[in-house]
Amino acid sequence: MGAREPDDGIRLTDDERLDWLRLIRSENVGPRTFRALVDHCGSAQAALSALPNLARRGGASGSARICSRAEAEREIKAARSLGVSFVALGETGYPSRLAMIDDAPPLIAVRGNLATLARPMVAVVGARNASAAGIKLAERLARDLGEAGLAVVSGLARGIDAAAHRASLKTGTIAVLAGGHDQIYPPENAGLAGAILAEGAALSEMPLGWEPRARDFPRRNRLISGLAVGIVVIEAALRSGSLITTRLALEQGREVFAVPGSPLDPRAEGSNGLLKQGATLVTEAEDVLAVLRPILGQALEQRFEEPGIAPPPPTMAEPGLDERSRIVELLGPTPVGIDDLVRLSGNPPAVVRTVLLELELAGRLQRHAGGLVSRA
Amino acid sequence: MGAREPDDGIRLTDDERLDWLRLIRSENVGPRTFRALVDHCGSAQAALSALPNLARRGGASGSARICSRAEAEREIKAARSLGVSFVALGETGYPSRLAMIDDAPPLIAVRGNLATLARPMVAVVGARNASAAGIKLAERLARDLGEAGLAVVSGLARGIDAAAHRASLKTGTIAVLAGGHDQIYPPENAGLAGAILAEGAALSEMPLGWEPRARDFPRRNRLISGLAVGIVVIEAALRSGSLITTRLALEQGREVFAVPGSPLDPRAEGSNGLLKQGATLVTEAEDVLAVLRPILGQALEQRFEEPGIAPPPPTMAEPGLDERSRIVELLGPTPVGIDDLVRLSGNPPAVVRTVLLELELAGRLQRHAGGLVSRA
Repeated sequence: MGAREPDDGIRLTDDERLDWLRLIRSENVGPRTFRALVDHCGSAQAALSALPNLARRGGASGSARICSRAEAEREIKAARSLGVSFVALGETGYPSRLAMIDDAPPLIAVRGNLATLARPMVAVVGARNASAAGIKLAERLARDLGEAGLAVVSGLARGIDAAAHRASLKTGTIAVLAGGHDQIYPPENAGLAGAILAEGAALSEMPLGWEPRARDFPRRNRLISGLAVGIVVIEAALRSGSLITTRLALEQGREVFAVPGSPLDPRAEGSNGLLKQGATLVTEAEDVLAVLRPILGQALEQRFEEPGIAPPPPTMAEPGLDERSRIVELLGPTPVGIDDLVRLSGNPPAVVRTVLLELELAGRLQRHAGGLVSRA
Repeated sequence: MGAREPDDGIRLTDDERLDWLRLIRSENVGPRTFRALVDHCGSAQAALSALPNLARRGGASGSARICSRAEAEREIKAARSLGVSFVALGETGYPSRLAMIDDAPPLIAVRGNLATLARPMVAVVGARNASAAGIKLAERLARDLGEAGLAVVSGLARGIDAAAHRASLKTGTIAVLAGGHDQIYPPENAGLAGAILAEGAALSEMPLGWEPRARDFPRRNRLISGLAVGIVVIEAALRSGSLITTRLALEQGREVFAVPGSPLDPRAEGSNGLLKQGATLVTEAEDVLAVLRPILGQALEQRFEEPGIAPPPPTMAEPGLDERSRIVELLGPTPVGIDDLVRLSGNPPAVVRTVLLELELAGRLQRHAGGLVSRA
């Protein structure tokens, strides 16, 4: 799974796809662990076999739950009946910008007009309790951005999100869900979600049946910004979800745009704050397009390249007890770089990576952006 | 009148002040011509004697009107009875930043607490038909900027200007008038103008009795920005007077700040436009202070230095007829640099300057910012 030639998207077999689904649905396996496991073991299948042993060595008290073959088969079958399919990271059809983020989901469940996922996208997000003016601006911007050829990504929330989707139904819009495809939230937007599928698509990394909890929204937000070239924020209050999405967008190197508002309007505090920090001021779609055009021009030249899932290391690094405890000692609540752990522990990188993987599977490690890790 | 030592402000004698007033009140003599005349002739008194001859050589049809000694004496007497005094460019008491602009008025008529004119100033300007929110913001910003030690400059207009003055009455505010001190415009703000004088000041370059006409406002606006370190724009529509002031402020190298507003509010179009062009976004006074503090820190180190009125040239350059007509030929409606005229006419700079001065006195030349000139 090294770097590939353009257009050389991999294509998983049904069995491979089943293994990928089982692995990502297993306990303590997130997108980064998935990647580390496949790096370490060589394939999802090999990783599934190695999981119990790795987790035990990492100090798991019980045995970490592995998604069974039957469970995964049931999910794939249920998905198919809903018109939901799974696209794997590295396959043609996986959105190219999303593939480049640190913690790209190994599998995305998608539904609707999947061609939309190949188009350049712009995210339009904002307050749920939007003002009439905010709604109008979201509609105007989403419509004009859509007519300019961009697919509009948003989170299907009340307020700005829904307005952005609605105004770009005809040109193609993408709803990123925080729960499963059969658990549309908020329920009042189920009709809108259905309408989106005609020209656009819905996307989720969560299992069918998953009812979104509060903590699933920030996690979902990284996909909204990850899919898009840039993100337009309308009416974001301080400490709002839109600002979280913006932070993620900045980490992902996405362009950030904000619509200004009166300093007396609390719904504009977040967006005005973004403008102070250097976001591009937007009053009309052209302000966004002027920034995105050169980037998209370039992007059209870029071809798909699978993000760095390295080939498995030649030898399996088996850390000894001392090495493991030294690395565990070095870990604290403050995120540190893996390079630092290598340097400070005096162990080879492969050993450090293996120990971290084991700890992660045992639920004792947390991974952060930028390759940092901390004790969970 | 060369560059002087710090604190070595000149102090005009009563006779000199009278000559300065006569010269600036004479026909076709603006601030730039005043300066050129004093450069050329050595003093205002000498310039007054030379005026008729220079104007005739410049091609004046009749004789340009020269302000008589009696007229000037009458103005000074009337001013004194109103508590208005004249401060000359280069004198201690002339606002130091204003002294540095291209077309600083040679004399300003001031009234009120003149110590305010020595303080660092910030201009707060905006729409006459301001919204309630705009008024509230102007008040809040002017109050907080005043409490931070800045004198607030504005134009005494309805709306934002009046709100800014009102909120900074206690800390000191400066009204720059487009007409004479006895011709307050709009009349409804006469009470406010009076209240300003207790702690702050009013300033005008126009004669007593001068009723402001439309074209006097842009002219006045250069003084508002010229006095200030920076200018804060609140609710400026497109093609508004505030935007003119902003353009002047940029030419003068002043900091420009703008308060954002909803893209749906026409009163925010100008300010949002300024933000797109790089103005600093302001939601609270601290946003202004953060930019001005380092500048003012530096400015407090700077001492007064008289702006470059050079000593008179050793010999009076007397252009011949051919030289004059060549330069006149070179002038058209498009502003050109004096350097270009020197180069293209093949005449020495002193000759070109003299011809331009003559043309100006004859009402046949217009001077522009950046030392450009065009045919009037």
